[in-house]
Amino acid sequence: MTLTAWKALIEETLPRLVPPQAPERLKEAMLYSLMAGGKRFRPLLVMASARALGAHPEPLAEAACALEFIHTYSLIHDDLPAMDDDTLRRGMPTSHVRFGEALAILAGDALNSEAFRILALHPSPCPAQTRLRAVEVLAWAAGGEGMAGGQVLDMDAPGAPATEERLLAIHAGKTARLIQAAVVLGALYAGVDAQSEAAFAELGMKTGLLFQVADDILDETSTAEQMGKSAGKDREQGKLTAPAVWGLDGALRRARAMEGECLSLLEPCGPAGAELRELVGMVCAKLSA
Amino acid sequence: MTLTAWKALIEETLPRLVPPQAPERLKEAMLYSLMAGGKRFRPLLVMASARALGAHPEPLAEAACALEFIHTYSLIHDDLPAMDDDTLRRGMPTSHVRFGEALAILAGDALNSEAFRILALHPSPCPAQTRLRAVEVLAWAAGGEGMAGGQVLDMDAPGAPATEERLLAIHAGKTARLIQAAVVLGALYAGVDAQSEAAFAELGMKTGLLFQVADDILDETSTAEQMGKSAGKDREQGKLTAPAVWGLDGALRRARAMEGECLSLLEPCGPAGAELRELVGMVCAKLSA
Repeated sequence: MTLTAWKALIEETLPRLVPPQAPERLKEAMLYSLMAGGKRFRPLLVMASARALGAHPEPLAEAACALEFIHTYSLIHDDLPAMDDDTLRRGMPTSHVRFGEALAILAGDALNSEAFRILALHPSPCPAQTRLRAVEVLAWAAGGEGMAGGQVLDMDAPGAPATEERLLAIHAGKTARLIQAAVVLGALYAGVDAQSEAAFAELGMKTGLLFQVADDILDETSTAEQMGKSAGKDREQGKLTAPAVWGLDGALRRARAMEGECLSLLEPCGPAGAELRELVGMVCAKLSA
Repeated sequence: MTLTAWKALIEETLPRLVPPQAPERLKEAMLYSLMAGGKRFRPLLVMASARALGAHPEPLAEAACALEFIHTYSLIHDDLPAMDDDTLRRGMPTSHVRFGEALAILAGDALNSEAFRILALHPSPCPAQTRLRAVEVLAWAAGGEGMAGGQVLDMDAPGAPATEERLLAIHAGKTARLIQAAVVLGALYAGVDAQSEAAFAELGMKTGLLFQVADDILDETSTAEQMGKSAGKDREQGKLTAPAVWGLDGALRRARAMEGECLSLLEPCGPAGAELRELVGMVCAKLSA
């Protein structure tokens, strides 16, 4: 199977994980944001990471979707008027524009909680100890020391000194920890030892940092049409970005170097690492498009 | 140990569960709402339920606090301007009044995710299978078919027919499922079989419904000073409440009957059920205060 086939499997699996007995309006809001397209980068990482370590990725589709639940909840809440106040996401009205703020908040809240139910139940043949560790890893990546914490740092950046240290803390929190969790979950489901898990945690963190540096560069250089969302908002909101700290050329050079480090870390995987290499490559490919 | 001693243990445990490396402002907002008092009804239920089934409740304090994390996140988000728009909670300014809307949203989000990390890690001597089931139970109670779903039904109630069926669906979702989860978690940690778990699930649901009927009555009959929050808001917002469906006297009669059913379900527990009986009794005691 290729990444395209895995993506099709994810698209088909996502709606099945929305709890069927939830109120219709809530399901509609959850599905609206879940099924609004997107690259499915995080769930694909779970599958590609497991495959790189010799596991079959298809049975991991449900667990992989938990990452997309967390990612989607974060997008819905980030777009709220009190946060980034965005009206457009992937070329469509954002959740609160479409459903009102209250339902958008609750759809995000439900997706956040449901992600952990998915990981508790899937992949069902996996030992309970592995699934429990997956819950711990994802909850940490999403919580106060992870994504939610990174959002607070990001929000507080305007006015604070534009240091590399602060930039890396923001990038790690708001983006890289969740991407790292995706890569680590794949390794966990492949049943690796603690040493390989640590190596994949490093790969996941570097991939995540690369992802956000590329995102910062694109926000600076793209049009809204190319992005499918408002462009140039980071600068407008005084956010701390890679180009703000390193300059645009410096940020591009860093991105290339980070890509190289990720690919080096992947070398020991040989041909099984093909899909994971492809995903890392996709992050940088957007920059030269 | 008495309920008072358990409560002290919960008060002491809660702040230790806030992730230490989270950004200071986020920790401050999480702690502000976590430590704002409250009866700690849900964590006490976990401990009392385990005790009723013969387990030692003290080692369950951390896991019990996960319920308070979920409850606290729900209060923060419920109070937001886009939701109930409350400025006062337990006699103090609500989170968004104190910290701004963005940080209030993120503090709630972090508490939601962190609750599942707590259940993945605690109680550490418990089998992984039990902790995994606890994650599943809490995630279901908090998610689309539980609390978040109940909030959507509650929000949509104005204008909809005031039927008993709809009232029970709202009460079950927004309140009772989380209280039920607390009682079920206690049973799980006590290591009971599926039959006893089902009996405690029934007890938990009845206790939760009783709790919300009592809350609806109090909202109608109390002053803001007595409540520590705005009173009479349900009627003002056109919400569907127990007095609206059954009348005030009818709602009081139902509450007494539900209390009786809960106490009957507890009879087989004998003296070990003392604390759980006391907690059920506290719900109704407020009504005659």
